[in-house]
Amino acid sequence: MINCSLYGVIRQALDSGVVNKLIGARNGITGVLNERFLNLRGISSDVVDKLRRTPGSALGSCRYKVQGKDYETIIDVLSKHEIDIFLYNGGNDSMDTALQVHQLASSSGLELNVIGIPKTIDNDLPSTDRCPGFGSAARYVAQSVRDLGMDISTLPTPISIFEAMGRNAGWLAAASVLARRNPNDAPHLIYLPECSFDPEAFICDVKRVHEKLGWAVVVVSEGLCLASGDPVYSAGGAAQTDAFGHKLPGDVGSFLAGLVSEKLGLRCRSEKPGLCGRSSILLASPVDQKDAEAVGRAAVDAALAGESGKMVSLQPMKSSKEPETSLVSLESVANVERRIPLEWINRRGADVTQEFCDYVRPLIGSELLDYIRL
Amino acid sequence: MINCSLYGVIRQALDSGVVNKLIGARNGITGVLNERFLNLRGISSDVVDKLRRTPGSALGSCRYKVQGKDYETIIDVLSKHEIDIFLYNGGNDSMDTALQVHQLASSSGLELNVIGIPKTIDNDLPSTDRCPGFGSAARYVAQSVRDLGMDISTLPTPISIFEAMGRNAGWLAAASVLARRNPNDAPHLIYLPECSFDPEAFICDVKRVHEKLGWAVVVVSEGLCLASGDPVYSAGGAAQTDAFGHKLPGDVGSFLAGLVSEKLGLRCRSEKPGLCGRSSILLASPVDQKDAEAVGRAAVDAALAGESGKMVSLQPMKSSKEPETSLVSLESVANVERRIPLEWINRRGADVTQEFCDYVRPLIGSELLDYIRL
Repeated sequence: MINCSLYGVIRQALDSGVVNKLIGARNGITGVLNERFLNLRGISSDVVDKLRRTPGSALGSCRYKVQGKDYETIIDVLSKHEIDIFLYNGGNDSMDTALQVHQLASSSGLELNVIGIPKTIDNDLPSTDRCPGFGSAARYVAQSVRDLGMDISTLPTPISIFEAMGRNAGWLAAASVLARRNPNDAPHLIYLPECSFDPEAFICDVKRVHEKLGWAVVVVSEGLCLASGDPVYSAGGAAQTDAFGHKLPGDVGSFLAGLVSEKLGLRCRSEKPGLCGRSSILLASPVDQKDAEAVGRAAVDAALAGESGKMVSLQPMKSSKEPETSLVSLESVANVERRIPLEWINRRGADVTQEFCDYVRPLIGSELLDYIRL
Repeated sequence: MINCSLYGVIRQALDSGVVNKLIGARNGITGVLNERFLNLRGISSDVVDKLRRTPGSALGSCRYKVQGKDYETIIDVLSKHEIDIFLYNGGNDSMDTALQVHQLASSSGLELNVIGIPKTIDNDLPSTDRCPGFGSAARYVAQSVRDLGMDISTLPTPISIFEAMGRNAGWLAAASVLARRNPNDAPHLIYLPECSFDPEAFICDVKRVHEKLGWAVVVVSEGLCLASGDPVYSAGGAAQTDAFGHKLPGDVGSFLAGLVSEKLGLRCRSEKPGLCGRSSILLASPVDQKDAEAVGRAAVDAALAGESGKMVSLQPMKSSKEPETSLVSLESVANVERRIPLEWINRRGADVTQEFCDYVRPLIGSELLDYIRL
């Protein structure tokens, strides 16, 4: 959805009639540091329109912490190119970068309006009802888990562990709950990084579901941790190595499938769509697409109105209304993670409540595909 | 797509006007053994229509080898229910079951017309141009790898290993080639179980692509084996265990991602959509859906015409024509695996040829979503 926001920025800037120069930095702040710029006014209208249906990040992304003499370089480059508005799109780390640029400009006497545009499929930015990117990835998880349930329920391999993205916050794994229409539908169990993971309770839970239904679909967040704080997939700290002595990367779904096979003697497999779950345009949420465009447009408006050091925030949804935005300070969001409120998770730590469903359902934008059983 | 074939069978049987009783066995041959039958005439027309857009197997599946006194039971049950046509849908193992039922009926003097209906996403049945299920799963792989390429090419994690289904035949992994429009597009490397896998050559290949492009998407079949015949993920035979002493299930994509990280010092991740790749109705191929219905209808026609011991086979596609079927003997297909011809794989064993592309492109049914780059 980051490209929908870019679309919103370009359109709003052009519509404003007061933006002379419109340039994009390649790969975030590293594009500023290296002066790798793209003239966004030079892009044909047709290509700009197609941004709305393009996965990935058209301008590229980076994972770079601004430090040392980068500060001087940034100020020099922005001055040299006569840039007086700086819009930065991303999640927690990106909002921190935007905050640093804002503070740097202030202390350097550079007139620069800095606005953050939220985007993270993890949905873990504070001070906003939701993050662009999340609704579409949530729709992917929910539809995929419903599809998977149809397959697993009729297979000789009766159990599947579906691994959803989300290192510290379980919003995406939790969104799988929308796959369930009836109590016996998949997903039967949902484990989130907000609760410490107990392997024994997990095995009991899976056993109970399997005894009742004969099959089970379990959804886990990639970032599950034990009570000790250690990730589940390297529990105990021992190296997971193959015959060559190579360490195996930890995939928690794969690990838990092995645990089920061993402890319960049941065939168990795992599925991990990974990045495919955030790059599927076919499963994009129309609500999410509107949100992403709206925050891009609002960022342009805020900067042109002279605001700086702020992030565009989305207000809670009202029925069938257009997305409403406001501004919050970058200081309140930079490096802060919003996790699922514990009262939205059931006492067993293996499912979410109706309140969570009510929150997430409108965000996926339209009904999931529904199926029949004979 | 197995439900599309069931749709074809039901519609053709009802249309024929000569089928008095139409029953489905739950979970394949085990449904016959346990007399778990469903009256397919009793299903509303609306529900029958919805079968075409329902993933999984509406009647359920099984993995059971008919043996010992099962034979008597099958004959008894079929006689008791006055069944004189037996249609069986599935892959290599299922065609073997169908063949056994056919031989059993012949030797018991039971008048029974047995017809096999092909279905396997692995596309590895011989004596047919293609298998229903494959075109849709191929479309999923190709679109997902194209989407993934858009994401990975702009990420700080520059390499992804995408694991496709297919234990012994690489048709699905190979179909990812359709994601590529330009030579530098994903997938950059494709490894198939038809060729023995050389970890050192693999690392060289990945290094070369990464040096040239700065990123890489690699597609692997789940069933890759070393020259020794051992699966890649348990190379050397050592147990992969965690701190608890639990064996880890082998995910070849995950394993190879770890190998790349270690050998090349590059961030590398893996994606494994697994069953999600065969249960996505949104990505179903319209050509595949037609094929699946056609083989179901043809099986009814063949049985009513007095044929037995045969499987319905699909003829090579002609441009914009309806699927054409013929019959082949079950003996020629039962337990025989069709792998990708070696002349369709490049000499390096890391890509497929234009001939393969020409074969698979029509099967996915329509163009993939296409994207722009800035």
